[in-house]
Amino acid sequence: MADRQQSLFMRALRREPTERTPIWMMRQAGRYLPEYRATRAKAGSFLKLAGNPELACEVTLQPIERYGFDASILFSDILIIPHAMGLGLGFEPGEGPYFERPLKTPSDIRALPGIDPNGDTGYVMEAVRLIRANLPAGTPLIGFAGSPWTVATYMIEGRSSKDFATAKTLLLSEPEAAHQLMNHLADATADYLVAQVEAGADALMIFDSWGGALSPRLYREFSLASQQRIVDRLKSACPDTPLILFGKGCGQHLEILADTGCAGLGVDWTMDMGEARRRVGHRVALQGNLDPAVMLASPDVVAREARRVLESYGEGPGHIFNLGHGITPGVDPDNVRVLVETVKGYTA
Amino acid sequence: MADRQQSLFMRALRREPTERTPIWMMRQAGRYLPEYRATRAKAGSFLKLAGNPELACEVTLQPIERYGFDASILFSDILIIPHAMGLGLGFEPGEGPYFERPLKTPSDIRALPGIDPNGDTGYVMEAVRLIRANLPAGTPLIGFAGSPWTVATYMIEGRSSKDFATAKTLLLSEPEAAHQLMNHLADATADYLVAQVEAGADALMIFDSWGGALSPRLYREFSLASQQRIVDRLKSACPDTPLILFGKGCGQHLEILADTGCAGLGVDWTMDMGEARRRVGHRVALQGNLDPAVMLASPDVVAREARRVLESYGEGPGHIFNLGHGITPGVDPDNVRVLVETVKGYTA
Repeated sequence: MADRQQSLFMRALRREPTERTPIWMMRQAGRYLPEYRATRAKAGSFLKLAGNPELACEVTLQPIERYGFDASILFSDILIIPHAMGLGLGFEPGEGPYFERPLKTPSDIRALPGIDPNGDTGYVMEAVRLIRANLPAGTPLIGFAGSPWTVATYMIEGRSSKDFATAKTLLLSEPEAAHQLMNHLADATADYLVAQVEAGADALMIFDSWGGALSPRLYREFSLASQQRIVDRLKSACPDTPLILFGKGCGQHLEILADTGCAGLGVDWTMDMGEARRRVGHRVALQGNLDPAVMLASPDVVAREARRVLESYGEGPGHIFNLGHGITPGVDPDNVRVLVETVKGYTA
Repeated sequence: MADRQQSLFMRALRREPTERTPIWMMRQAGRYLPEYRATRAKAGSFLKLAGNPELACEVTLQPIERYGFDASILFSDILIIPHAMGLGLGFEPGEGPYFERPLKTPSDIRALPGIDPNGDTGYVMEAVRLIRANLPAGTPLIGFAGSPWTVATYMIEGRSSKDFATAKTLLLSEPEAAHQLMNHLADATADYLVAQVEAGADALMIFDSWGGALSPRLYREFSLASQQRIVDRLKSACPDTPLILFGKGCGQHLEILADTGCAGLGVDWTMDMGEARRRVGHRVALQGNLDPAVMLASPDVVAREARRVLESYGEGPGHIFNLGHGITPGVDPDNVRVLVETVKGYTA
């Protein structure tokens, strides 16, 4: 534990000087890896894989063993919480997630049960414990959850959405019910993340994949406010565990996200890393921000574009290299090796 | 003509004082209107509708007659140019556009023909002439095209894309071929837009629907630069015709878009209108920015949210009310009436 607190990743999150920029990748345990595909085939489905602590541990460790990433992230899904609340999560091949029992009315929201993190989602905590026990002692483990707004879009729409029309209509037309849902999810998410820390997570991350779809007013009132509620609860329950907030398409909200009191912000690829750094000053660490599409190009393009991100961030502490979003299934695993070697070998 | 130059829309585009804020809607001729659906059924398909000047004129006029919008926009499609270049445009029901012969290699790009705007796309110019002849004399007509980058994504991917991986790989790995494609499309687009002005368009608009998917460097090098090339050519060929640039998800680029010398910028719904105005100062007019999802809520929510946009822009000239993106098919036509009445009746 003391060891891990001095790891490159944890020091960068605290904006302490590091010998080099640490690197990990969102969805580093994923379909681009043949060993992941083998384990997933053994599990039978994504949900069975995420629901089986031994197999979830196995795939979490695979990219660490293959590439030596500087941080590990729990293999799980942002929809585990509403699944535990009884909405009935499923995955259609090639179509993404769906819920068998989406929220249809404000009374569905009022009827939503709470969750017992160590009961209803005990298999996640068991996976965290197993991963922690099997990871190299010096490699930090990141736990995570989805943001209340992002998770709510699936709970209301019943599946992925292009325009989030039904979910936005709830925010616009039934703000009280919407606030009730956000608060309920924020509280459950905070409990769930605290349980991950108790099970062995060293750092936490919240994914707000769809915050960027909201107007600024709705963003502040629902997505940001509910994330703030989680930040506040985590600061009180586990003040030494750093939290990273990642909002895709939320570059315009970087300053107010930094003001939440989180330790770090994820930055997607639509903003220069140097500009992101100028805008947040020294308040937070920054994680990102290579366009995942770069990983589909040739090795020399991967290396060149990775160096551009490092150069854009510039000298000084507080940068964690990552993609600007999850790695895509079609990437050549050798390109990931090139990426890791480029970042590890980079000197300004 | 002199009359139209003094219309609310044209004066607002020149940032001259207006008695009230003018309003029109992206995709105002669209599936939410029963009369549009009837004409489209008569045409047999979207492409036949866009390809038939009489029917294209008919649907262009429908929302003007029903609601009295302050500007009219040609009914057409951003993929008309590559269709005229021989790529073979088609539409799959519910799936969006595709090309039968997408660009596969740099030599496909080198082999792309130019187009004769009054020959290959003569039916568009005929539609512009017919619309102009049938519109109320005081109602300005907006001509339009897609941005080179946005159009190129379809030409390269062959269809709509979530991550534009193939198109981005071209920019990253074959920059010379990519520049050649952007320049070729920019020149063809400029000729096409000039022909629309000669046929009767009073103002022009370029839709960069996918500029927001690019990293800032690729955005500047490819999307912005090719739009700049069009702006420069239009300023020389038709200096009195104002041009609006609309980049969805491009709020981070607002200042450099304003620096192109265009007359106005479209603003999607992810930025407060007042902030957009502060950022661009008095250089350009601003058009937008109600979230299209608002149109699916109740009439009172529509009116309330429309007033918020007007209040956010504040007093002073240069605002053209619009949605932040095209209106969606499921909207109740009565909500559009509420929107128009709210904007027309608004006083600060």
